[in-house]
Amino acid sequence: MTKVHNFSAGPSILPREVVEATIEGIRDFAGTGLSILEVSHRSKEFVAVVEETQAIIKELMNLPEGYEVIFLGGGASMQFLMLAYNLLETKAAYTKTGVWAANAIKEAKAFGEINVIGSSEDKNYSYIPKGYEIPSDVDYFHCTSNNTIYGTQMKSFPDSPVPLVCDMSSDILSREVDASKFSLIYAGAQKNMGPAGVTVVIIKKDILGKVSRKIPSIMNYALHIEKESMFNTPPVISIFSMLQNLKYIKKVGGVKEMQRKSEERAALLYAEIDSNPLFRGSVAVEDRSNMNACFVLEDETLEEKFNSAWKAAGISGIKGHRSAGGYRASMYNALPLESVQVLVDVMRNFNK
Amino acid sequence: MTKVHNFSAGPSILPREVVEATIEGIRDFAGTGLSILEVSHRSKEFVAVVEETQAIIKELMNLPEGYEVIFLGGGASMQFLMLAYNLLETKAAYTKTGVWAANAIKEAKAFGEINVIGSSEDKNYSYIPKGYEIPSDVDYFHCTSNNTIYGTQMKSFPDSPVPLVCDMSSDILSREVDASKFSLIYAGAQKNMGPAGVTVVIIKKDILGKVSRKIPSIMNYALHIEKESMFNTPPVISIFSMLQNLKYIKKVGGVKEMQRKSEERAALLYAEIDSNPLFRGSVAVEDRSNMNACFVLEDETLEEKFNSAWKAAGISGIKGHRSAGGYRASMYNALPLESVQVLVDVMRNFNK
Repeated sequence: MTKVHNFSAGPSILPREVVEATIEGIRDFAGTGLSILEVSHRSKEFVAVVEETQAIIKELMNLPEGYEVIFLGGGASMQFLMLAYNLLETKAAYTKTGVWAANAIKEAKAFGEINVIGSSEDKNYSYIPKGYEIPSDVDYFHCTSNNTIYGTQMKSFPDSPVPLVCDMSSDILSREVDASKFSLIYAGAQKNMGPAGVTVVIIKKDILGKVSRKIPSIMNYALHIEKESMFNTPPVISIFSMLQNLKYIKKVGGVKEMQRKSEERAALLYAEIDSNPLFRGSVAVEDRSNMNACFVLEDETLEEKFNSAWKAAGISGIKGHRSAGGYRASMYNALPLESVQVLVDVMRNFNK
Repeated sequence: MTKVHNFSAGPSILPREVVEATIEGIRDFAGTGLSILEVSHRSKEFVAVVEETQAIIKELMNLPEGYEVIFLGGGASMQFLMLAYNLLETKAAYTKTGVWAANAIKEAKAFGEINVIGSSEDKNYSYIPKGYEIPSDVDYFHCTSNNTIYGTQMKSFPDSPVPLVCDMSSDILSREVDASKFSLIYAGAQKNMGPAGVTVVIIKKDILGKVSRKIPSIMNYALHIEKESMFNTPPVISIFSMLQNLKYIKKVGGVKEMQRKSEERAALLYAEIDSNPLFRGSVAVEDRSNMNACFVLEDETLEEKFNSAWKAAGISGIKGHRSAGGYRASMYNALPLESVQVLVDVMRNFNK
């Protein structure tokens, strides 16, 4: 079996150690004699898993007092709706930096006026809008920290006069951020945190309870906090596997080390994209994502040949998203530098 | 390690073969060299999993033409809201047969007038209301086929003049039903179908598109059907593991065989409850669930002793739900008759 270099945009690569720890729990969970697949979510052993997962996220992200962590099903797309239900009374400000940001805006529009204060739609989302001012009379400001499809990433976050809400689905735990700047952070687990099936929501508790509408139970952050993510049956196996990954991240050096590795991978690949005459980066250099490097062939007729070359090297998942075309190498937390080196070697040899 | 007899109310027991097949996919999914935990949901191998899972559900439930099967995150509680979003224009009829039915009613009330045409709330949900008439001027009629907490089960389904909507979370695939009677069936997977994390929704397509409201994307059944459960990232591992279980059910004889086994288990346990003077069944005899047998000790002071006895026999998960008290033995598809025999022996010896 050839070793696979997994550049999938998500669900994405996990360390082998995490895969093995997940298997262990499926075989016999916490010495219960039961599989994690068949254990009650209210068993003391699984309640301990949820508590440990909350604690390790608080630790890894260095969350100040006053923040809660909950685990929900339904994906980040569910949060586009849920956050509007919980936070949007009259109007909100959004930046429009890609397909997901646009979807977040679309869902929120049903609840109030949406002020798009920055957009890069004019250039197919190939840059991060800057210089916008966040109005002080909106209920919150929403941004997307990393745009998976287009390969752009916010390198800094604004000081916001209103609660700052961020979809961090594709770069959470890959770099150090000042969590205290944010009032709500959400992220589908399936890029940097764990397998698909669970969404992590981090909430500064004091922003809740401000809207006048009646919020449906399953949409109500306050209820999920009160019930400690057990308002209904949570996605047990996805949470368990995510915990194995978070423990691994902590063990190898935490978010600081994830950031170091991420910068190392990105530097290696972008250097090749910039120096190799056959390739061109797709987005504004200063906004390049350390997670998803998007690039194109200068000569599109070489596509078939290049595809054969990277496939032969055991590379998987670098075809660009159908909305963006070209190539996209996703380099999440678990991707070894070695895999990036293999891709760089393929690109270099392809030029020879 | 003592063998565990897993009577958990859900997430619940799975066949060891299914646990092993899940492990196999986590180790190396479909020969991709990748774990199912880290594979793209848009890979051809996982798309094939989704298609096979849809097909096997259609086959096992003998669904006629015109029905669609989708897989969603968020649990059955999410469906309480989602079905109302999609189907409730002015009013709907519900039966109130337990905590979950009551929650379904509560969520729907935000969308229209709810006519509770049958309720067993007066006797702590210890029977199934009968003899009600379903009005012909409502948008749909909603019922819960099996009440997990209280241990009651609908033994037949009414002929409905309006679309029949059913929460089958706790008895789907445990007995043969005439699927053509239903317009919408939904079920959290974690009782009879697979591990927690995925909800199966079966929809007769012609009931959609009848409400005038704008439905949020993530709540829109038609959109999930159109996108073949890939509107956003689905709960990959939960779907994969569920498929392993559905294949197992098919292999051992399908729903007919599940029903035979279920009746055999229930007959054995209820016979002991009825003949043993120390115990008493909690619900109306004709409405007893074949899935969840609820019973109490005639003399509550014996509780501690009885608890020690079943624990010593390796029995797990028979404490009653906090809303109902007493004991509840959940006997889902994968529970071996042997486990029921162990419980019956404990009860019998306890009487000696």
